[in-house]
Amino acid sequence: MNKNTFAKHPPMGWNSYDYYDTTVNEAQVRKNAEYMAEHLKEYGWEYIVVDIQWYAHGAGSQRDRFQYIPFSGLETDEFSRLQPDPERFPTSVGGKGFAPLAEYIHSLGLKFGIHIMRGVPRIAAHLHTPVKGTNVTADQIADPSSICGWNPDMYGVRNTPEGQAYYDSLLELYASWGVDFIKCDDICNTNLYPNHPFSGRHEIEMLAGAIQKCGRPIVLSLSPGPALIDKAWHYEKYANMWRITDDFWDDWKLLKDMFRRCELWQNHVSEGCWPDCDMLPLGKLGKGFGQERDTKFTPEEQQTMMTLWCIFGSPMMIGAELPLLDEPTLALLTNREVLHLLHPECRAKQVRLTDDSSVWVSLDSKTGSVCAALFNLSDSTASVSVELDELLETARACKALPDSEDPVSLSALCEASDSEELLPVLQDLWTKESRKADSRTLTAELPAHGCVLWKLCR
Amino acid sequence: MNKNTFAKHPPMGWNSYDYYDTTVNEAQVRKNAEYMAEHLKEYGWEYIVVDIQWYAHGAGSQRDRFQYIPFSGLETDEFSRLQPDPERFPTSVGGKGFAPLAEYIHSLGLKFGIHIMRGVPRIAAHLHTPVKGTNVTADQIADPSSICGWNPDMYGVRNTPEGQAYYDSLLELYASWGVDFIKCDDICNTNLYPNHPFSGRHEIEMLAGAIQKCGRPIVLSLSPGPALIDKAWHYEKYANMWRITDDFWDDWKLLKDMFRRCELWQNHVSEGCWPDCDMLPLGKLGKGFGQERDTKFTPEEQQTMMTLWCIFGSPMMIGAELPLLDEPTLALLTNREVLHLLHPECRAKQVRLTDDSSVWVSLDSKTGSVCAALFNLSDSTASVSVELDELLETARACKALPDSEDPVSLSALCEASDSEELLPVLQDLWTKESRKADSRTLTAELPAHGCVLWKLCR
Amino acid sequence: MNKNTFAKHPPMGWNSYDYYDTTVNEAQVRKNAEYMAEHLKEYGWEYIVVDIQWYAHGAGSQRDRFQYIPFSGLETDEFSRLQPDPERFPTSVGGKGFAPLAEYIHSLGLKFGIHIMRGVPRIAAHLHTPVKGTNVTADQIADPSSICGWNPDMYGVRNTPEGQAYYDSLLELYASWGVDFIKCDDICNTNLYPNHPFSGRHEIEMLAGAIQKCGRPIVLSLSPGPALIDKAWHYEKYANMWRITDDFWDDWKLLKDMFRRCELWQNHVSEGCWPDCDMLPLGKLGKGFGQERDTKFTPEEQQTMMTLWCIFGSPMMIGAELPLLDEPTLALLTNREVLHLLHPECRAKQVRLTDDSSVWVSLDSKTGSVCAALFNLSDSTASVSVELDELLETARACKALPDSEDPVSLSALCEASDSEELLPVLQDLWTKESRKADSRTLTAELPAHGCVLWKLCR
Amino acid sequence: MNKNTFAKHPPMGWNSYDYYDTTVNEAQVRKNAEYMAEHLKEYGWEYIVVDIQWYAHGAGSQRDRFQYIPFSGLETDEFSRLQPDPERFPTSVGGKGFAPLAEYIHSLGLKFGIHIMRGVPRIAAHLHTPVKGTNVTADQIADPSSICGWNPDMYGVRNTPEGQAYYDSLLELYASWGVDFIKCDDICNTNLYPNHPFSGRHEIEMLAGAIQKCGRPIVLSLSPGPALIDKAWHYEKYANMWRITDDFWDDWKLLKDMFRRCELWQNHVSEGCWPDCDMLPLGKLGKGFGQERDTKFTPEEQQTMMTLWCIFGSPMMIGAELPLLDEPTLALLTNREVLHLLHPECRAKQVRLTDDSSVWVSLDSKTGSVCAALFNLSDSTASVSVELDELLETARACKALPDSEDPVSLSALCEASDSEELLPVLQDLWTKESRKADSRTLTAELPAHGCVLWKLCR
Repeated sequence: MNKNTFAKHPPMGWNSYDYYDTTVNEAQVRKNAEYMAEHLKEYGWEYIVVDIQWYAHGAGSQRDRFQYIPFSGLETDEFSRLQPDPERFPTSVGGKGFAPLAEYIHSLGLKFGIHIMRGVPRIAAHLHTPVKGTNVTADQIADPSSICGWNPDMYGVRNTPEGQAYYDSLLELYASWGVDFIKCDDICNTNLYPNHPFSGRHEIEMLAGAIQKCGRPIVLSLSPGPALIDKAWHYEKYANMWRITDDFWDDWKLLKDMFRRCELWQNHVSEGCWPDCDMLPLGKLGKGFGQERDTKFTPEEQQTMMTLWCIFGSPMMIGAELPLLDEPTLALLTNREVLHLLHPECRAKQVRLTDDSSVWVSLDSKTGSVCAALFNLSDSTASVSVELDELLETARACKALPDSEDPVSLSALCEASDSEELLPVLQDLWTKESRKADSRTLTAELPAHGCVLWKLCR
Repeated sequence: MNKNTFAKHPPMGWNSYDYYDTTVNEAQVRKNAEYMAEHLKEYGWEYIVVDIQWYAHGAGSQRDRFQYIPFSGLETDEFSRLQPDPERFPTSVGGKGFAPLAEYIHSLGLKFGIHIMRGVPRIAAHLHTPVKGTNVTADQIADPSSICGWNPDMYGVRNTPEGQAYYDSLLELYASWGVDFIKCDDICNTNLYPNHPFSGRHEIEMLAGAIQKCGRPIVLSLSPGPALIDKAWHYEKYANMWRITDDFWDDWKLLKDMFRRCELWQNHVSEGCWPDCDMLPLGKLGKGFGQERDTKFTPEEQQTMMTLWCIFGSPMMIGAELPLLDEPTLALLTNREVLHLLHPECRAKQVRLTDDSSVWVSLDSKTGSVCAALFNLSDSTASVSVELDELLETARACKALPDSEDPVSLSALCEASDSEELLPVLQDLWTKESRKADSRTLTAELPAHGCVLWKLCR
Repeated sequence: MNKNTFAKHPPMGWNSYDYYDTTVNEAQVRKNAEYMAEHLKEYGWEYIVVDIQWYAHGAGSQRDRFQYIPFSGLETDEFSRLQPDPERFPTSVGGKGFAPLAEYIHSLGLKFGIHIMRGVPRIAAHLHTPVKGTNVTADQIADPSSICGWNPDMYGVRNTPEGQAYYDSLLELYASWGVDFIKCDDICNTNLYPNHPFSGRHEIEMLAGAIQKCGRPIVLSLSPGPALIDKAWHYEKYANMWRITDDFWDDWKLLKDMFRRCELWQNHVSEGCWPDCDMLPLGKLGKGFGQERDTKFTPEEQQTMMTLWCIFGSPMMIGAELPLLDEPTLALLTNREVLHLLHPECRAKQVRLTDDSSVWVSLDSKTGSVCAALFNLSDSTASVSVELDELLETARACKALPDSEDPVSLSALCEASDSEELLPVLQDLWTKESRKADSRTLTAELPAHGCVLWKLCR
Repeated sequence: MNKNTFAKHPPMGWNSYDYYDTTVNEAQVRKNAEYMAEHLKEYGWEYIVVDIQWYAHGAGSQRDRFQYIPFSGLETDEFSRLQPDPERFPTSVGGKGFAPLAEYIHSLGLKFGIHIMRGVPRIAAHLHTPVKGTNVTADQIADPSSICGWNPDMYGVRNTPEGQAYYDSLLELYASWGVDFIKCDDICNTNLYPNHPFSGRHEIEMLAGAIQKCGRPIVLSLSPGPALIDKAWHYEKYANMWRITDDFWDDWKLLKDMFRRCELWQNHVSEGCWPDCDMLPLGKLGKGFGQERDTKFTPEEQQTMMTLWCIFGSPMMIGAELPLLDEPTLALLTNREVLHLLHPECRAKQVRLTDDSSVWVSLDSKTGSVCAALFNLSDSTASVSVELDELLETARACKALPDSEDPVSLSALCEASDSEELLPVLQDLWTKESRKADSRTLTAELPAHGCVLWKLCR
C-alpha cells in the first residue's frame, strides 16, 4: 500500500478535544457525527476523531489538579492494549471496543479516527501482562526511561521484534474496529527530551509498518508539534500529517506565529504529506476544560485562520461542538471555493512575510487559476499591497513541474500583465464581490488581523 | 527573469580552490579552461570558476601564518569595488577587470564564474571611499559588527537603499565583465554568529535583486555550509545552489558524513534549486596550500563520491588541476549514463541509511527508467542488499506528480515484480556489465567504502 | 604587588556614563569631582571615572543614529594608543593626556579612573602604525576576527609578546598620567561570541600583567556583564571587580533580577574581589542620551537598591550628575551605618529568595554585629517575615573561618534566642527607629518594592 | 544542627560500587569494614558505604542486558520505603533493616553510609501504598514525569508537605538504623533533563530538612555530577559534598579532565562543603561488572590522582576491594603528610593549568607551611617548572582571611625569597627525599602523567 494514497488531500473532520478535553462519551461523538453527515459532509468534511484518554476511568474528574490523573485506572485487555472506558463508551463492552461506534459512523458515510499515546501502558509493564503474538510480557518491551512529559499513561516501546509485535497487535485491533485515522501523540516531537526530540523515530516506523501489515489504509497523524524541520523527509516517508505547532488555541499570538510556521513548511506540502496547523478553535469550546465558552477569535481572525489553513494546505479538524455551530461559523466552514484550495492540484507559496503583513499565492496546476491572499497582521486597519508581477512570478514557481508550460489561465494572466487595460478582475472568495484591479499594484484595505482572498480572473 | 531557468540542471565545472588556494593566476585559469573545452565540455562540464582572493596583493605569500593576510593590500576601483590583482591577472589592467579572461573562456564555449565575499572591503569603510550611484561613502553602508570569522577582507553591508545600490554596482560590473556564475561566501551560514547564522539573509536578497536588475542570467551559489535546513525555502526562492556542508576534502569521514547530509536535503532538489555537496577533490590537489599531492580518496571512494553526487543531484565542481588528470579520473568524470542522473527529470530518494550501508534509488520521470545505488559504508568488504519491492515503492515516490500514472518502464518493472521469472536485469553503470537479478532481494558484494550503481531493465 | 590590596573594600565613586553617555568633557568632570570632595568624600566616595569614548572626535553628534559613530575619527598617538579628544579635554594637548586632569582630581583627595575598550584601534591596524617597544606595527598584533559587537573602535589583541608589549605601553602611559582605576569593556563577557564569551581571557591576563609591571596599584574593573560564573576563579585571580549584569538602569525589572544575580555570586565576595552590580542610576540622568530626566526608581526602589548593593558588597558608582543631587538622594548616599556593610569584615548571605520576597543577613566578623534586610519584591504592600533562628544560623555561616568561635555579639544574640524575654531590639538603619522584636518570627510591613534594614541588638 | 560540622574535613572511606556494582552483600561489607578498622582507620579512613540497589531482588542477575533490571522486584516496607534485600543482607529480616550491620560497623569504630535514589519507588506509586505520617498514598506524592534517565526504580517526589513527610519518614528510618552518611543519587544533576538539570532542587532541600529533623548528624553527599557551578551556593547551603564529575573511572582522559574540574571548583572548598572528585579506582575493581581486574592506572597516574584529590581537598572513597589491597596501593593510602593536605586549615589554589602541565599550591593557615604539586599532563617525560615567587604569591592568596598577617613559615619562605642563598629545601612527600632548590625557578623532571609533591622548608 502506498501511504500517500490514504490522504490525497488534507484530511478534514472534527476532533473532540477542544470542546470535551478528556471527557467525551459515545453519545456526544454520535451527535457530532450526525451533524457532520447532515451539514458538512457534502463539503468534504469526513473524519470523526475521538481524542485523548478514551481508555481512562474517571477522566476529567480531578480537572482542578490534573488534566491526566496520574497512576489512575486505565481500561486494558489481556494483551496490554488499551480499550474504551466502558462507562463512557457503553457499546464497547464485551470486547467489542470501538467497533460499534465505528460502524455507526461509517453508516453515516463518515470515517472514524482515534487518538493514541505512543507506547505501552505503564501499568502493564509494572504488572508484567502479556504481549499478543509473543512469549514476552510488557515489562520486556517497555523502555523505563522513555516517558511522555505531560501524560503519565505510557512507556515508550523498545525497538525490537517484540516491540513491533506489540504495535502490530494494536493495529490489528484497530483495523478490526474499523479505525480510519490514528492521531498518535508524544511521537512527532518528544519534547521531554530537548536534546533528543525525535526519540520516537523508531516508533513512527513501527506504527507505519504495522499499518502496512494490518491491510487497512489508516491515515497516520503525528503529534505534538512543533515537528522538526530536519526530519521533514522522515515524516514525508512514513506519515500523512504532522503537527507543525504545539497545541493551537484561539489566541492571536498563536495565529500570528502560524505564518512563520507556514513559511517554514511551505515547500513540504504534497499529496499524502500534510504539515498540520492543528485544530480550528471555532464556535463553542472548552466545556471539558471546565468552562464552555465561545472562541476568542474575532470574525476577522476566524477568516484569517481559515484562509491560511486552506491556502497553505493544512489538514482541518474542527474543534467546535458541531451541534452548537452558528450560521457565520458554518458559512466559514462551507465555502466551496475556499475549500478548493486544499485540493492537491493547488500548490501555494508565500510571497512575503513581515511583522505587519503576509501575502500568499496559490496556483491550480490543472486550470492555471491563481488565488492571492493578503493578510493584515498589524493591530489596526491597514492597507496591504503586492506587486502583480511578483505575485504571478511566485505563482509560476508553484507549478509541480517547473519546466512545464504554463497552464492556460496563468498564461492569460501573465499576458494581461503587459497591458494596463488588461488588468485582472479580483474576485473576493469570501464576500463574492468582484472588482477590476486599478493598477499593477494590488492593494486591499484590511481590518486588524483581517485578510482578503482573491481569485484573479481575466 | 526566473532564476530557476539559470541552472536547469546542477552546474558542472572546475574551481581553482582545491589546487591553487588563493594563488591562481590568469595563465593557470586559461590552461584549465582549454583542457575542459577539449576533454570535458561534451559531457556537460562548462563552468570555470576563479575562487577566493583574486583581488588580493601577495595572496598566499604568508601561507605558513595566514591563509588570508590581515590588513593587507586589496585591488579596488574608485567605487569601493574589488578588482583583479593586476600582477596575477595582467589583462585586467586599465579597468578591464575580468572582461578579457571571460571573453576568452566564452570563446571556448564555456562559462565564467568568480568567487566573492559578502560585503564591502573594510579598507573602503575606513577610508570613506564612494559608492557608485549614491552620494554616500563606504563607511555609511558598512556594518562594523558584521564580519567574517575566517577572512579579514570585508564588512557586511547594511540593509538600506544605499546598500542595495552597492550590490547593484557590483552586479553591473560583473555583468559587464561577462560573469556567468557567482559563488558568494560567508553568506549561506555566517558561522561567526552561532545564534544568528542567517545574518546574511538580507544580503542574499540584495544579491538576487541585483542579478535581476543586471539583466544577465548569473547563477547564484551560496557558501559556506552547512546550509540551514530551516531556511531551505529561502535558498530555494533566491539562489541556485547552496552548500550543505562545510569545506569538503578528500577524507572518508567527510564523505561518509555526506550521506547524512544528502538524507537531510533529499526532498529539496529541484530545477534551479541545487543543494551543493561541494567540490570534487580528485586528481592533483593542494599546490597552493603548500604541497601538491594526489587525492587521498581510494578508487572505491572516488566512485562512491561520484555516484552519490550524481544520484542526489548535487552541483559538481572539479577540484583537480585539469591538465594533470589521469585516465581513471577522466573516466570517472565522463560516464554519460552516470551523469544523466543529474538531469532534472531524474529525481532520487534515499531508501535506507545505516552506519554500515546506504541505498538510493533514482527515477527518470520521462522514461520511467530506474537506477539504484548500493553503498558499503563499512571499513571492510561486505554484502549490501535491498528488497526490490521497497526499491520500486520508493522509486514510485520519486514521481514529480504523485498522482500521475507510472511511466512505462516503471510500470513494467513493477509488473515484473509479480513474477519470479521476470526479475530485472541489473546493468552496472560503472563496469557496463549486466546480470539478471536472482531473487527479489538485490544483493551486491562491495569493497570497503565502495558502491554499485545499477540500471534496472526488463 | 598583591592586586587584592588595591581594593580592600568595594570601590565607591562616580561615573560619567549615566548622565553624559559619550559626551562628557573636562569641565564637567571637574565639577563632579569638586562636589564629591566637598559632600561625599568623608563617607568613603573617592573615584571619579571618565567613561567611554573620551578619545572620539564628535562623540555623541549622531546620537539619533549611532551611540558610537562607525569609522569616525579617534585621537591617537604615534604608538597606536588612544588619547583624550582635545576638543573636550583641552588640558590634554601637547601629549599631556589625562595627566593634568588626574592631577587636579588627586589634589582634591580623590582618585581618577578611565574607561577603555579591550584591544587596539581598528584604524591603527588598517594604517599599520607602530607599537611602542617593538618593531612591529598594529596590523601584526590586531586580530581581525576579534571585534566588539556594539562598539566599532577596536580589534582584539593577539596573545603574543608583541601584544603584551602593546598593553604594557598602555599601562605605562596610564600610570604616567596618574590613573588609579581602569574599567575595561568588552572583556568580561565578549557577548558577540555566545559560544566563546570568554574570548578576552588572555587580554585580562595581559592587562593584569601590565598593571603589575607599571608599578602603580591600578584597580582593574571588567565589563560588561553578565560575568561568567564558571570563570569566577579567573576574575578573582586577575581582577578587582567584574560586572555581574549587563548595563543596569532605573527599571524595576532589572532591579528585581539583581536579587537572582546576587544569589548566584553571594559566595564570591571577598577582599579585592568584588562582583559588581553596576552603577547607581539615581538623581538626574540621561542628558547625553538626548533627554535629561530624573531616575525612574521610586524612593522605595532607591532604598532597596542601596540596601542590596551594600549588604551584598557591590562596588558603588553613582550615575547621577552630582552637582544636581537633591537632599533625599544625598541622604541615601551618606548613611554611615548602611555604608559600613561594605567593609570587608562584613560578610553576607542570602537567607531566602522567592518571587515575592528576599531576606539577607550580614555579619561583622570583628564585632559580631548582625544586620538583616527584608525586601518586598511584590507589586503591593506586603508583610515579609523571617525566623530569627534561621537568620542567626545563616549569620553564623558568614564567619570567615567556619571553625572559629562566634564573635561576642553573635553569641549574645544566639543566647538571647533561648528566652522569649531576651528577644533582640531591631534598629532600623534607614529610619533610625528601634523596636523590640515581639516574637521569634521577625516581620515587617513593607511597601511595594520596599525594604527594611535592621541591626539586631540585645 | 549546623550541617558544616558534620564533615569538618573531606570524608574518607570505602564504597562498594567500583568492585561490586549492584551485587554487594552483608558478608562482603563486613570484610571490608574489618580491613579498614585494622589497616586504614588510624590514617583517617572511617566511612563504609553500601552503594546502589541494596534493596533490589536479583540485582546483577541480568548484567549482560541491564545494570538495573527494569520493573523487577524491590524490597519495600508498608510505608513505601525501600528495605535491604533479605537474601543479600540476612540480618535485615524482621524489619531490622540496616541496623545490625550499622551496629557492627560502629563497633569497629567506623561509620556507616548508604546510597539512595532520589524519590519514591515507582511500584509504590502504581500500587498506591501508604506514606507514613500522612493520610495519602504514594501515587499522591510521586511526580510521574520526574524519573531518572539511567535507573528505573523511582519517581521524584512532589514539593508538598506530604512529600516532605515521606523524606522525613525515610530519615527517621535511617537514623533509627544508625546511618551516618547518605549518598543520594539522581539529584545533583538530573541529567535526563538537560534544560532543567537542577530539577531535584526541592528534593535536596527536603532531604536536608529531614536530616535536621531526624536529630542525627548525617553527612549528605549528592550525585551524580557534574555539579552545576551556578548552584554552588545551594550545594554549599544544604549539602556536605557534591560530585563535580560524572562517574570517574581508571582512564587517563578522565583523570586529566579532573584538573579542569578542580580549576573550576577551587574556590568552593571549605569546612563542611566539599566538591567531590568521586571514588578512587585503585587496586582490584570490577567484579560485579562481570570481570575482576586491576586498576588501569599506572603507578604514576595513581600518585597523580592521590595528589590532586588531597591538595584540592576532595572527599576520598576507595573503590578497591580492601582485603585484596597490595602494598604499594596501601602505601598510597596511608601517607600521613599527604593526607594532612585534606585538613580544613589547608587551603589550595591552582597556580597554572595548560594542556601539558599543572601546578597547585597549598597553604596551612595555622602553621604557614607551603606545599606545591607539579604535574606532567603530557604523554612523555617532561620537565615542569614554576617560579617560586608566583608560587608564594598564590600561597598567600590561600589565606582564609586575606587581610591577616602571614603565618610564620610563609613569612620565612617569602623572606627567603629575597636571597639566593636562602632558597627553600624541597621535601618530596612521596619519596621522602629532600634537596635544596637551585634557583628561583623550581623544576622537576617528571614521567608521563606523573607528579611531584613538595613541602617547601627553610
